[in-house]
Amino acid sequence: MSFVPVSVNSHFPLQNLPYGVFSTASDPTPRLGVAIGDEILSLKEVQHLFNGPILSNAQGVFAEKNLNKFMSMGKDAWKEARSSLQHMLSANNHILKDDHGLRGRAFVKQADAIMHLPADIGDYTDFYSSIHHATNVGTMFRGKENALMPNWKHIPVGYHGRASSVVISRTPIRRPCGQTKPADDKPPVYGPCRLLDFELEMGFFVGPGNKLGDRISVDQAENHIFGMVLVNDWSARDIQKWEYVPLGPFLGKNFGTSISPWVVTMDALKPFVTSNMKRDVEILPYLKHDDDYNFDINLSVSVQGENMVEPAVVCESNFKHMYWTMKQQLAHHTVNGCNAKPGDLYGSGTISGEEQKSFGSMLELCWKGTREVNLGNGNVRKFLKDGDNVILSGYCQGNSFRVGFGTCEGKVLPANI
Amino acid sequence: MSFVPVSVNSHFPLQNLPYGVFSTASDPTPRLGVAIGDEILSLKEVQHLFNGPILSNAQGVFAEKNLNKFMSMGKDAWKEARSSLQHMLSANNHILKDDHGLRGRAFVKQADAIMHLPADIGDYTDFYSSIHHATNVGTMFRGKENALMPNWKHIPVGYHGRASSVVISRTPIRRPCGQTKPADDKPPVYGPCRLLDFELEMGFFVGPGNKLGDRISVDQAENHIFGMVLVNDWSARDIQKWEYVPLGPFLGKNFGTSISPWVVTMDALKPFVTSNMKRDVEILPYLKHDDDYNFDINLSVSVQGENMVEPAVVCESNFKHMYWTMKQQLAHHTVNGCNAKPGDLYGSGTISGEEQKSFGSMLELCWKGTREVNLGNGNVRKFLKDGDNVILSGYCQGNSFRVGFGTCEGKVLPANI
Repeated sequence: MSFVPVSVNSHFPLQNLPYGVFSTASDPTPRLGVAIGDEILSLKEVQHLFNGPILSNAQGVFAEKNLNKFMSMGKDAWKEARSSLQHMLSANNHILKDDHGLRGRAFVKQADAIMHLPADIGDYTDFYSSIHHATNVGTMFRGKENALMPNWKHIPVGYHGRASSVVISRTPIRRPCGQTKPADDKPPVYGPCRLLDFELEMGFFVGPGNKLGDRISVDQAENHIFGMVLVNDWSARDIQKWEYVPLGPFLGKNFGTSISPWVVTMDALKPFVTSNMKRDVEILPYLKHDDDYNFDINLSVSVQGENMVEPAVVCESNFKHMYWTMKQQLAHHTVNGCNAKPGDLYGSGTISGEEQKSFGSMLELCWKGTREVNLGNGNVRKFLKDGDNVILSGYCQGNSFRVGFGTCEGKVLPANI
Repeated sequence: MSFVPVSVNSHFPLQNLPYGVFSTASDPTPRLGVAIGDEILSLKEVQHLFNGPILSNAQGVFAEKNLNKFMSMGKDAWKEARSSLQHMLSANNHILKDDHGLRGRAFVKQADAIMHLPADIGDYTDFYSSIHHATNVGTMFRGKENALMPNWKHIPVGYHGRASSVVISRTPIRRPCGQTKPADDKPPVYGPCRLLDFELEMGFFVGPGNKLGDRISVDQAENHIFGMVLVNDWSARDIQKWEYVPLGPFLGKNFGTSISPWVVTMDALKPFVTSNMKRDVEILPYLKHDDDYNFDINLSVSVQGENMVEPAVVCESNFKHMYWTMKQQLAHHTVNGCNAKPGDLYGSGTISGEEQKSFGSMLELCWKGTREVNLGNGNVRKFLKDGDNVILSGYCQGNSFRVGFGTCEGKVLPANI
């Protein structure tokens, strides 16, 4: 128990302690914080309380403007910090609790904070690791028989995304313009995207990483996975369709990717490990690991149109639907010597379950525009409208507590034509 | 004329003045420099001599560790710096020439310098803008009739590359390992790449750039293009072939991209503007510009195997073979609101001409392994061998001077299995 009040449904109990970067109106310098209940603990104010063997010599890491340096320190430092934080915030510990001056400086209400990207993201990669999503999309575009490409069960298929356009939750997303080809027998046209979509994803941040030419084995991968966030990989389906052959998605994706502000550490997620997905195809040894590294994280997507009183849930999914684990993704990404750096972001790909209500994109929910998604009170959607606020949420349910991610939100602004 | 000696064949006369980042054994701090003849002018030593209206208030930009800040300042600052440098280095100007103390501090021999990446590269995008290259590759894999994809003449097709693995010339490149599928009827295998290739490309660095949600029009694009480098986008053809459907090239590319150290500015390249390529397909207005923005840059690739006394030229090409201009690439890349940042790198794609000797990759030169490339003295290649040093070179030929790029080199190290 913490001396900071935490409600039963809070995403941020003492068992979580996710890291983020925040500022306030009165102090606009971005700084590191940890979410606890409805508060943020400002780490630079309590850096002197990190007294473990590693961090007592590196307290300055908590005075940085982003998490990159802390991420680079590796697993032992992360564990030590977590233990110090749990101690600091515990109801039994009086050092912070009873120092009213320090407490006054060290805590900021989440409601008063402006959140920033948790890390300087050098590279952003997006995988395609949900079998139901890949099957759905493949079925729509190539038919049921050829839904999954021949490589899909052998490789955690992925591609490079755009790092510059990764934005923090609540950054509005402008509907992109671009080139599309609405009719096969007519030339392409220019205009605002007509098939704007969200993608329900999660992502992980890399810790120490590897040098160019080296690799991270599947067994070492865990030491390089710092923590996770919610990711909305906004997609312009009509732009994507015309551009993506043969080099993959480009302008259909790079106009914006939203992430949730709190990075939930793998230590906080450990109690929610669940079985890896069963596979019917033998994979190469460099991708094999015996231990479970899948996570039971409840995910949802809600959409609130401009005239709606409250958001309507359009998707309820779970991270456990991933076919490829994060360990496999990282081992694959670096098997050729590609270097991963602290603060790199790796997206899961859209996370869809088997049932329709668990599909993680409008493309799947409206099945390529062939059916309407009901938002209640007469509001329906196929793809997103201007003014729609899209809200991703996620949490692990413990025994009377939740380890949550908060939300990842973004509102669609009309196109600039 | 400069007071620094410059030979007729030097790539770095007073007409060039490219920017780079260097260090020396005695001072390992990376710092900005300009190449002149066989020397480097260290900009932090002469920052007080930048006396124009813009730079006199921003001399500190020349004491930075990379070019990002200078790139962000825009065209007027770049022009002013060029004019100050030409003045400073001119044979008629005595301020630097006759100040022996300053001259001693300010000049470093290129032979004594260690070169670094010129910028902190936030994002790296690679286009596919040479029609002969796209046609060659398309013909090999899909036949002559379907060589170019339907979108190719409408869109400067491109994809996101990996920024972390962009390295400076002379960084050795380790042969990647990875997953390939040598036989259609057998499962994929793991091992070292067997079809390692270079790609002869050039790239441009972005200056000020645009905010997310805004765009850079084709008419404004020139204000955001700082300068160019040679690019070798190393490729593992066998890894690429198995992985690239449907999301594009990934591990077949991201194990290394080499660039030349000197960024040649667009002002230095202006005298070598040549006609844009003729097009037979109408393009959308957002991609149209009337002025010529193609450049006559002679390019070559040489390969030197471990047992060879000197490099053998395998390709002679020219940047003028580009179908899409850099203005069109940048306008397209940002038309959807994707933000370009100072220091972003945009590759041209492999630059092949019409004739066989101008093909910019081993894939094309050996036509998918069906013929051998002769390196002389009994040395032949289809793809690259361990120990091969690949040397890209490029220059514009003026009237008894050259505006050159130097070289972009990289030696293949054996795979780490």
